[in-house]
Amino acid sequence: MAKEGADMTEETEYMIDKNVSKEAENVESSGDAKEMRAVVLAGFGGLNKLRVTKKAMPEPQDGEVKIRVKACGLNFLDLMVRQGTVDNPPKPPLVPGFECSGIVESVGENTTGFEIGDRVMAFVNYNAWAEVVCTPVDFVYKMPEEMTFAEAAAFSLNFVAAYMMLFEVANLREGMSVLVHSAGGGVGQAVAQLCSTVPNVTVFGIASCFKHAAIRDSVTHLFDRNVDYIQEVKKISPEGVDIVLDCLCGENTAKGLTLLRPLGTYILYGASNMVTGETKSFFSFAKSWWQVEKVNPIKLYEENKVIAGFSLLNLLFKHGKCSLVKSVMDKLLCLYDQKKIKPVVDSLWALEEVKEAMQRIHDRGNIGKLILDVEKSPTPLMASDSTETSEAGEEEEEPEGDNDSKERMPFIH
Amino acid sequence: MAKEGADMTEETEYMIDKNVSKEAENVESSGDAKEMRAVVLAGFGGLNKLRVTKKAMPEPQDGEVKIRVKACGLNFLDLMVRQGTVDNPPKPPLVPGFECSGIVESVGENTTGFEIGDRVMAFVNYNAWAEVVCTPVDFVYKMPEEMTFAEAAAFSLNFVAAYMMLFEVANLREGMSVLVHSAGGGVGQAVAQLCSTVPNVTVFGIASCFKHAAIRDSVTHLFDRNVDYIQEVKKISPEGVDIVLDCLCGENTAKGLTLLRPLGTYILYGASNMVTGETKSFFSFAKSWWQVEKVNPIKLYEENKVIAGFSLLNLLFKHGKCSLVKSVMDKLLCLYDQKKIKPVVDSLWALEEVKEAMQRIHDRGNIGKLILDVEKSPTPLMASDSTETSEAGEEEEEPEGDNDSKERMPFIH
Repeated sequence: MAKEGADMTEETEYMIDKNVSKEAENVESSGDAKEMRAVVLAGFGGLNKLRVTKKAMPEPQDGEVKIRVKACGLNFLDLMVRQGTVDNPPKPPLVPGFECSGIVESVGENTTGFEIGDRVMAFVNYNAWAEVVCTPVDFVYKMPEEMTFAEAAAFSLNFVAAYMMLFEVANLREGMSVLVHSAGGGVGQAVAQLCSTVPNVTVFGIASCFKHAAIRDSVTHLFDRNVDYIQEVKKISPEGVDIVLDCLCGENTAKGLTLLRPLGTYILYGASNMVTGETKSFFSFAKSWWQVEKVNPIKLYEENKVIAGFSLLNLLFKHGKCSLVKSVMDKLLCLYDQKKIKPVVDSLWALEEVKEAMQRIHDRGNIGKLILDVEKSPTPLMASDSTETSEAGEEEEEPEGDNDSKERMPFIH
Repeated sequence: MAKEGADMTEETEYMIDKNVSKEAENVESSGDAKEMRAVVLAGFGGLNKLRVTKKAMPEPQDGEVKIRVKACGLNFLDLMVRQGTVDNPPKPPLVPGFECSGIVESVGENTTGFEIGDRVMAFVNYNAWAEVVCTPVDFVYKMPEEMTFAEAAAFSLNFVAAYMMLFEVANLREGMSVLVHSAGGGVGQAVAQLCSTVPNVTVFGIASCFKHAAIRDSVTHLFDRNVDYIQEVKKISPEGVDIVLDCLCGENTAKGLTLLRPLGTYILYGASNMVTGETKSFFSFAKSWWQVEKVNPIKLYEENKVIAGFSLLNLLFKHGKCSLVKSVMDKLLCLYDQKKIKPVVDSLWALEEVKEAMQRIHDRGNIGKLILDVEKSPTPLMASDSTETSEAGEEEEEPEGDNDSKERMPFIH
């Protein structure tokens, strides 16, 4: 673990390198000029599988853009990647991260539309959490002038996902109602803002109590996730709601479905329940993820209901929908220019602070998006430091709590 | 069964009355002036459970319209009602039928918007197959001047269902593709016409081979239901289609889902497979209906797919969406006035010919809608007549074929 002090970065890397896997060592054998810092996941498991290390500098291939990264988005999905609970993850060691912002450093052959020095945001199929990343031009978008790098890194995934769920999968129109779980999270805040661009939309938000003061103005009604929100929503809207956005999965799916009014759409866009403390090992994660309750189409028929799944990353990297996403991004940037939407940044973290940042998401502590700020130095630890690294195996208890006593003070934006 | 000849109607009724159930007899005890002809389903089962008999004339209640019926729509759902395979059917004896057209004969207290003599079409929660019907004013719509009663009876259910599935549940837009099963049926033809109102929509139709010549122009590509249409569609559109409309259910649901492209919507709007000859008894119908393959939401998430159920009758009579349906009807009548859509009537049948009409739907013989024409006299039988009535029990073989030898020649429109 990192030590206090201004020059801790080098020391952190040195210490972490001792634990680095063989594959990663080979990559690091290249010369200094061709190296970059990156967050590496050495194997699936707990926070202890993450370290900052040096990796070979990537070079842009045909049709790719090379980006000097300024900021990266940290998503719940990254926690699932860490635990290996996503579908077909690459073999570790791997560099996590699906989105970043930065400056174009060079472009590959047959790459048009971008020039060196362009400020851009981009989707990346892994590898975003590094100083430099290369990604196909189809996944790169120019940033508006007034947008900061942190905002840009907070923008792409959350707003594109929120927009596509509301307007492409469901068909949000005037007078409708939307229920969003994790209303304080990155997607939740994007959903709330996008709903406010349509007249007379009611937003029911679910969030932990301690977030209520901060996000009360962003939604119409706010409920504690620990109360029986089904009953609370029904008190206000006995017929139910038109759209349920559920990133939780598991037992809440059936509950959410009962809240749908006829012709309503239930959208499952993640499975963050799978990364809570209740199911702790990799094995039980995977098990509960795959054993989610199935839906009877006949029930949908009788109740006039719609159930949808939405995975933006699959849409981009497996389903080839980048031109559709590009058209959505254009609409979103238009709304940003009109100041109708603005990404909410929870906090900025150095690459070396990725574990604490992940812990904050795990604990549902964030309001808006967590950003890895590549140029940021780690913030001094708050409490007594420890260099111990938990070596918990994949089948053992989660080591999520192992740094409770040395929580950092993030830079709250 | 009916005899040949012009005055057969009275004789038919007389003969059928011998078999009528006790409840129906009680109803018929009222005076002649207060009676009307109606199709009565004496109990759930085969065609032999249907008869034309006299029933007490209904009178409009508060908020209701009394309609002198001219034509009624016959739908696949009516076959399911006959067999008792719908959810919570009323206790027989009952008068089937969910839609009709006719002339307003009187209105109940607090019924505004309609006057005696208005030409109307209406949804009815059962009881449509009669000379007179009363239904709440919310389910009644004025007919365009140039629309015939047969067209009106063919219009409501099919076009409202097709419109809502394409534009409310899915979000049909320019350039999309639609797969429709039973392309030759009433809903299928409505779907094809509505798709043609949107630029550049590709319609893949599935229909029995013998219908192909008649409906080829209504769709872009036409496939025989007996070939491997999944492969055929994929040859033309490797990525799949945007919308699958499935009235078949059962084993085809999984097949249809594989045809969906990312962000595509699969809509289950009926279950006509449940009324084919393969599963013959009431019990096995019900069993297969309820044992349809369930859908894993995680699979929807990974594949970015949407599955929806759509039941217009539940929407109207259980879910209270009559004002939404009214707004859809307004749009449809606008398209009708612009001559962009026009209901396809397969054939007209007298009330006494309801069994033969049902058999025609059962055999998938129709192109467009079957209409019960209340003022029509039964057409002379084509072959040797028989007064035998099959008394097949609910658990016995379907008596669907029992009138093969005396098929009528319907009035093909």
